[in-house]
Amino acid sequence: MVAWVGSPDDAPPPPGAVHDVGGLVMPGLVNAHAHTPMTLVRGAGDGMPLDRWLAEVVWPLEARFTEDDVRWGMLLGCAEMLGYGVTTTCEMYLHGRTVAEAALEAGIRCVLTPGIFELPGGLTWQQALDDAVQVHGDFHGREGRLTVGLGPHSAYAVPDEGLVATARAAAELGALVQIHVAETAAEDPGIPGRLARLGLFDVPVLAAHSIWLSDADLDLYRRHDVSVAHCPQSNGKLGSGVARVADMLALGIRVGLGTDGPASNDNLDLWEEMRLAPLLSRASAADASLVPTAAALRLATRGGAEALGLTTGSLEPGRSADFVRVNLADPSFVPALDDHELLAHLVWAAPSRLVTDVWVGGQPVVVDGRCTTVDIDEARHQVARRARRIRDGGR
Amino acid sequence: MVAWVGSPDDAPPPPGAVHDVGGLVMPGLVNAHAHTPMTLVRGAGDGMPLDRWLAEVVWPLEARFTEDDVRWGMLLGCAEMLGYGVTTTCEMYLHGRTVAEAALEAGIRCVLTPGIFELPGGLTWQQALDDAVQVHGDFHGREGRLTVGLGPHSAYAVPDEGLVATARAAAELGALVQIHVAETAAEDPGIPGRLARLGLFDVPVLAAHSIWLSDADLDLYRRHDVSVAHCPQSNGKLGSGVARVADMLALGIRVGLGTDGPASNDNLDLWEEMRLAPLLSRASAADASLVPTAAALRLATRGGAEALGLTTGSLEPGRSADFVRVNLADPSFVPALDDHELLAHLVWAAPSRLVTDVWVGGQPVVVDGRCTTVDIDEARHQVARRARRIRDGGR
Repeated sequence: MVAWVGSPDDAPPPPGAVHDVGGLVMPGLVNAHAHTPMTLVRGAGDGMPLDRWLAEVVWPLEARFTEDDVRWGMLLGCAEMLGYGVTTTCEMYLHGRTVAEAALEAGIRCVLTPGIFELPGGLTWQQALDDAVQVHGDFHGREGRLTVGLGPHSAYAVPDEGLVATARAAAELGALVQIHVAETAAEDPGIPGRLARLGLFDVPVLAAHSIWLSDADLDLYRRHDVSVAHCPQSNGKLGSGVARVADMLALGIRVGLGTDGPASNDNLDLWEEMRLAPLLSRASAADASLVPTAAALRLATRGGAEALGLTTGSLEPGRSADFVRVNLADPSFVPALDDHELLAHLVWAAPSRLVTDVWVGGQPVVVDGRCTTVDIDEARHQVARRARRIRDGGR
Repeated sequence: MVAWVGSPDDAPPPPGAVHDVGGLVMPGLVNAHAHTPMTLVRGAGDGMPLDRWLAEVVWPLEARFTEDDVRWGMLLGCAEMLGYGVTTTCEMYLHGRTVAEAALEAGIRCVLTPGIFELPGGLTWQQALDDAVQVHGDFHGREGRLTVGLGPHSAYAVPDEGLVATARAAAELGALVQIHVAETAAEDPGIPGRLARLGLFDVPVLAAHSIWLSDADLDLYRRHDVSVAHCPQSNGKLGSGVARVADMLALGIRVGLGTDGPASNDNLDLWEEMRLAPLLSRASAADASLVPTAAALRLATRGGAEALGLTTGSLEPGRSADFVRVNLADPSFVPALDDHELLAHLVWAAPSRLVTDVWVGGQPVVVDGRCTTVDIDEARHQVARRARRIRDGGR
C-alpha cells in the first residue's frame, strides 16, 4: 500500500531501508478488457472482420484448448503485460479457475469475469453462470489481487433469460458484470435499451467496445453509471469503428482502455491504446481538441481502475502499491523542459519498453526488465508448441 | 549492396568471412516525410490544432535555431530513427547544408528537400530556392547516401510564381519536389488542381499528407504519377483527418509512410506509422479489409522507397544493403506458426525496440542496440540544453 507521496525533502522518517529507484515512477497501467489466453491464437485469421474471424477461425481453435493450454497462454500474456507496465487486467474467458490461478501465479492484479454464453450442442448459459458463481466463491478477494465478476459474452450470445439471471446473480454477489456491447455496426442497435429493460444496467456493468451508441444510448449509460472499456487497436484492426470516447468523457461516463484479446491487437501493450484513444478520436472527427494528453494517461490508469470499481491506478496514500519505473534516459524524453512536456513525451513519444521495473501490491514482478514471476522463455516455448498442436487439430 | 538472397543451403561461396546474425533480417524502414531537427521542440504546444501550433509555437521557436542547434537536433533524431530500424529519411527543412552534413555524419540514407517558403520580412522564396539549388550542387549524391531535391513548403506558403520557378528548377536538375498538400480541411480544396496547372505535377512530386483529396484530385495524382507521404500519427494527433490510403493504393498511386516532425508525433518510430496506416483506414471506414498486413509492411519499406524514387526498401541482389535485424525471442513473436503469422506478428505485435542491429549501405550503424555513429547521451544533453535556451528566448 502507498504510505506517502511527495518530495523527498518533506518525507517522514522511512520505516525501513530506502531504495532509490530513479527514473520516473508512475501508476501501473490498467487493461480494462482482455482475453489474455488468446496468445495461443495470436496472428490466426489475420485480415478477417470480427464475425467471420470468430466463427471460422477463433472459436474452432479455442474449442481445442486444454486447461494447461489456457494456463500457459495466460501466463505468457501476463508476463507480456507486466513487461509493458500493465499491473491490472480485466479478463473475460471460459476456464475461470485456470485463468484465476495463472493470474495469481503471475503476480498481476486481475478482475476476472468468467465467460457466460450458450454453445450450440455444448455448454448452456445456466451451466456457465453456475460455474462463474462458483469461481466467485472460490477466488474472489484471493491474495488481495483477484476480483471475480460475471462475464455474459453479449446480448447476441446469451438469451434474455440468461441475462436476467446474470443480473440477479450479480446483484446477490455484489459483483461486476462485463459484457460486449455495440462492437460492430452489424449488431442490433436496440441492444443497449434491451439490456437496460432486462435489469442488467441496475448492477455495476462494464460494457466493452460500445462503439455504435446513439445519444440516447449514451444517456442510458450515464443514468445507469455503465462504464466502458474502449479498445481502439482491436476496433481499428477489425474495422469495427471508432467509439465516441470524447462524448462519453463529457457526459462523465467512466472509461478505461482495453487491449482486447492478443489475437485482435496483436499484443497486450496498453501504451498503444493510450496513444490510440486520442488518435482515433481526433483523426476520425478531425478535431485536435479531443481527448487531451492528460486525459489519455488518465484513461490508461485511474480511468481504467474506476471503470473496474478498483482504487488502483493512482499513487495516493492508502491505495495499492501498483507502480512502474520508466527509464528517462532516451531520445523520446528530450527535451522535457517542464512537467507538461514530460507528460507529452510519456504519452506520445516513449516506447513501452522503457518500463524497467514493475511492482504489484508492493511486490516486484519485473526487475531491470526481467519478469520475476514467469519464466518467459519456458512460456514462449510452451505456447508455441501447444499452438502448433491446436492448429493441427489436436486436443 | 545486396549480392545474393536465399536459403543458406543454396548460397554461392562467400567472398569473405561469414557473420551469422540470427533473428529476422528485413529491409530497413523508410521515413518518407520528416522534419527531424524538430526534436528541439518535441512536446511544445501539445494539444493545439495545426494552424495555431505552427504560428503561435513552432515558427517563433524555430526562428531562434542556430546551425549548431539544427545539427544536434538532426543528429539526435537520426540516432533515434536508426535505433528503430529506419534506414532512410526524407527531410524537408531549412538549413539544408547543416541537415545534409548531420545526415552524412549519422550514417543514415537521406533524401533532403531544403525548405522553400516566404517569410514576412525575412527570406524570399527566390533566395530559398537559389539556396536549395546550391545545396543540390554541393551535396546531391554524396557518399551514395544523399539525394537532394526541392521542398516548397505548400501552395499557401509559396506564391504561384515561386511554385512555377521551383518546377522549372526541378526539371533542370532532375530533382524530386516535396510539398505539403491538403493537410487540413481548412486548406483551399482547389490546391491540387492549381499545382497541376502551374506545372508542378510535371516533375516528380512527393505530396505529403494529401488527406482532403476529391476523386478528381486522386485521378490527377494518378495521371501525373504524384506520390504520397502518408503521416497517420501526425494527422491523428493534430486532428487533421484520415487520408484515403486504400483508394490511393487501388489507383496504383505510390504511397510511403512518414512520421512528420517529432513535435507532431511525438517520436520518429516508423513502426507506429506501419500499424497506424491500416488502423486509421479500417477504423474510420469500419472495414477490416482495407490496407492488409502485407500492404502495411510494404508501405513502410519498398512503398516509401518507390515514393522517393529510390531502389532501397527491399532485399534483392543489386539493391543497397539497408537492412535490420529483429530479435524474435519475445512474447510478441509467439506462436508464429507460419510465414503469414510471422508477418502479422511483425506488423501488429512486435515492439520497435526488438530491432537490435542496423546496416545502411552495408555499414553497421546500430550494433546490439547501440548506435555507433552518434553519441546519444551527448546528443540528448546538447538538445535539452539548447531547447532550454531557445524556449527562454535566446538565439
